[in-house]
Amino acid sequence: MTDLLRSWVESANAPEADFPLNNLPYGVFSSGDGTMPRCGVAIGEKIFDLCAAEGDDLVTPAGHPVFDVPYWNDFMELGPEAWAELRVRLTELLAEGAEPLPSYLVDQAAVQMHMPFRVSEYTDFYASRNHAFNVGSMFRGPENALPPNWLHIPIGYNARASSVVVSGTPIIRPHGQLKGPDDAAPRFAASQRFDIELEMGAIVGQPSEGPISVEQAFENIFGYVLLNDWSARDIQAWEYQPLGPFQSKATATTISPWIVTAAALEPFRASTPERERELLPYLAEPAPMLYDIALEVGLTPKGGRETVLSQTNLNELYYSAAQQLAHHTSSGCPMRVGDLLGSGTISGAEPHSRGSLLEMSWGGKEPVTLDTGETRCFIEDGDTLTLRGGAQGKGYRVGFGACTGQILPAREIGG
Amino acid sequence: MTDLLRSWVESANAPEADFPLNNLPYGVFSSGDGTMPRCGVAIGEKIFDLCAAEGDDLVTPAGHPVFDVPYWNDFMELGPEAWAELRVRLTELLAEGAEPLPSYLVDQAAVQMHMPFRVSEYTDFYASRNHAFNVGSMFRGPENALPPNWLHIPIGYNARASSVVVSGTPIIRPHGQLKGPDDAAPRFAASQRFDIELEMGAIVGQPSEGPISVEQAFENIFGYVLLNDWSARDIQAWEYQPLGPFQSKATATTISPWIVTAAALEPFRASTPERERELLPYLAEPAPMLYDIALEVGLTPKGGRETVLSQTNLNELYYSAAQQLAHHTSSGCPMRVGDLLGSGTISGAEPHSRGSLLEMSWGGKEPVTLDTGETRCFIEDGDTLTLRGGAQGKGYRVGFGACTGQILPAREIGG
Repeated sequence: MTDLLRSWVESANAPEADFPLNNLPYGVFSSGDGTMPRCGVAIGEKIFDLCAAEGDDLVTPAGHPVFDVPYWNDFMELGPEAWAELRVRLTELLAEGAEPLPSYLVDQAAVQMHMPFRVSEYTDFYASRNHAFNVGSMFRGPENALPPNWLHIPIGYNARASSVVVSGTPIIRPHGQLKGPDDAAPRFAASQRFDIELEMGAIVGQPSEGPISVEQAFENIFGYVLLNDWSARDIQAWEYQPLGPFQSKATATTISPWIVTAAALEPFRASTPERERELLPYLAEPAPMLYDIALEVGLTPKGGRETVLSQTNLNELYYSAAQQLAHHTSSGCPMRVGDLLGSGTISGAEPHSRGSLLEMSWGGKEPVTLDTGETRCFIEDGDTLTLRGGAQGKGYRVGFGACTGQILPAREIGG
Repeated sequence: MTDLLRSWVESANAPEADFPLNNLPYGVFSSGDGTMPRCGVAIGEKIFDLCAAEGDDLVTPAGHPVFDVPYWNDFMELGPEAWAELRVRLTELLAEGAEPLPSYLVDQAAVQMHMPFRVSEYTDFYASRNHAFNVGSMFRGPENALPPNWLHIPIGYNARASSVVVSGTPIIRPHGQLKGPDDAAPRFAASQRFDIELEMGAIVGQPSEGPISVEQAFENIFGYVLLNDWSARDIQAWEYQPLGPFQSKATATTISPWIVTAAALEPFRASTPERERELLPYLAEPAPMLYDIALEVGLTPKGGRETVLSQTNLNELYYSAAQQLAHHTSSGCPMRVGDLLGSGTISGAEPHSRGSLLEMSWGGKEPVTLDTGETRCFIEDGDTLTLRGGAQGKGYRVGFGACTGQILPAREIGG
């Protein structure tokens, strides 16, 4: 494992910093002075303005500008060689000992962050064994909890790209069709069981046509973001048979604003758990393709203080993003730059390591007590939910920053 | 009902023509002389080159060119007033009595057609009662055929936009995980139960944020295309629980190349069937929003002649595209210009009116006999499947052209 790479940006050298020189995550920001959103890289508490640096030929990944736009898609299109070259160049420019370039720095606290890339399509998986077992137990009973295909297929469904928003975007509680088991007919009302899903999102950085191997899939993944797939459990329970979740998952999905690259996570690779059934060869992993990344969920009631609800790790997943992507192409499905793959809710084995309130409160039956003494089964209006994550190196961490959203009351609509 | 509007393009006046002046469907074509794909409108056996006409200021829907690009999205963005104005202008330019403009015409037989629009996202519904009942009977038994939510919700799932292709594109038989009920474990192999789905696709022409009414949804729909949602039934059966179809529907979806506008279909509006359960108010239709459109499926074995397998009508649908779109937004889901909504397979009550081979052969148990004497349960390599559709006016029809695709043998891949 590498040590901390020191930077002339002093705040990047703090052991608890999310964005040391080892990280170099990519985002899109605007600085409120009438400038357009543009590409930047986080370093300590600053952003290095790549649009300005490109304008002055400090970085020149392409023969044309790719950082003056509000998305990283154009840069991703350039391919893995360009990805590696930019990382080398930025490491050089920002290293301790290099000539400081303070005029290219902007305070993170002073900017607005935007979606870091244009989401082409969004697919959400179901790759945590504990989560699948917990939810299956609640929806279908413990004897039918894990579907028979689950140990063979990285189960996933197509989700809604237009609903993906950046951290900080307020989320309006949705309406939908609700029907309790004892209700004669459904009604149209605001969801009463609105929930989070603690996930990791993988971003496809290279297109493909036709089936690709797990190894190729791993190489096509540009980076990762924290992902909260807001879910209306009451809408889901009534709508999801037989074609899967639809409006229950279409209100919003929040992602963290910084793309942590696969390159930055390289020192933290981890294996998927031991196989309970042998996988078909097209899904075999030639090397460890998960990461050791600590994850947590916090809930802050309106005007209150945060309670950490859950702590878990990405290495709980049964299938890696590379396996998911390879499976995604198995039918010949074309993939595009900017496709987003959600891991599925990540839950550990213990109650305090579950990735959704549905699981933490066991279907709403066992309320969770906050540090303030209040209780929660599901999200209440005004609550802010925050995901955090990071990989721990020797004297540094590769962090993701926060992935946060506050729930606003439902719209006033008839129905 | 209006009569035939006569055009100076003589082939547009034939009673059996798909593209009379009453239709004016929009497509994207290239003419093989090195020119780029561009926008055109079909008239009889010709295409009126809108890119050329715009260049000469014959049509000027915007202050900037919108027809020199290989998609109709930019024009759709202009909104319903611009849509209506272009239709008026084209009707004027192409009417009998107007000065003929033969230099703007290209033979349809001489061009290549391309995707008429960029698909933002693709959602597939399940809105035909007979289809839902038939498939439900086969997958879950007749007693559980129609899911309890079906009469209340236009059931749909997010499908894969990157897999949508234009009519004429060859389709490679997919591989996938297959497991029969008596198999101990799944295997990775070419699908043996590859199928069609006869559908209509609705194209969203205006964006929305938050929930919209059925009436607004109807106004936001720009037009329609025939849609064949190729489906691997054996992959589907093993993968679809609990999150719905995924790789079984990701190989390809074929659409017809001409967008038939909602305006052209206006004389053919029809009501959805009588409600078996009262719908919640947010789904109520303020007026008839389906159309009376005859549909058919033909199968042509390699080197053989076509057999018409099935004939049905769009007005079999229980939910209109406007109801589907309104439901799609009920959770607050944002919609974008270029979103494609598949109706779901359209099946009538009789065996000869079913929209999939799964239904026609009743799960592969009752082979269909072709006119050549051959039989089919599912698609064989080399078969070409063709959808056709049209609305019948007085002495004219508003046709969709063909939506066709030939199945090529599966790739040679390990597994």
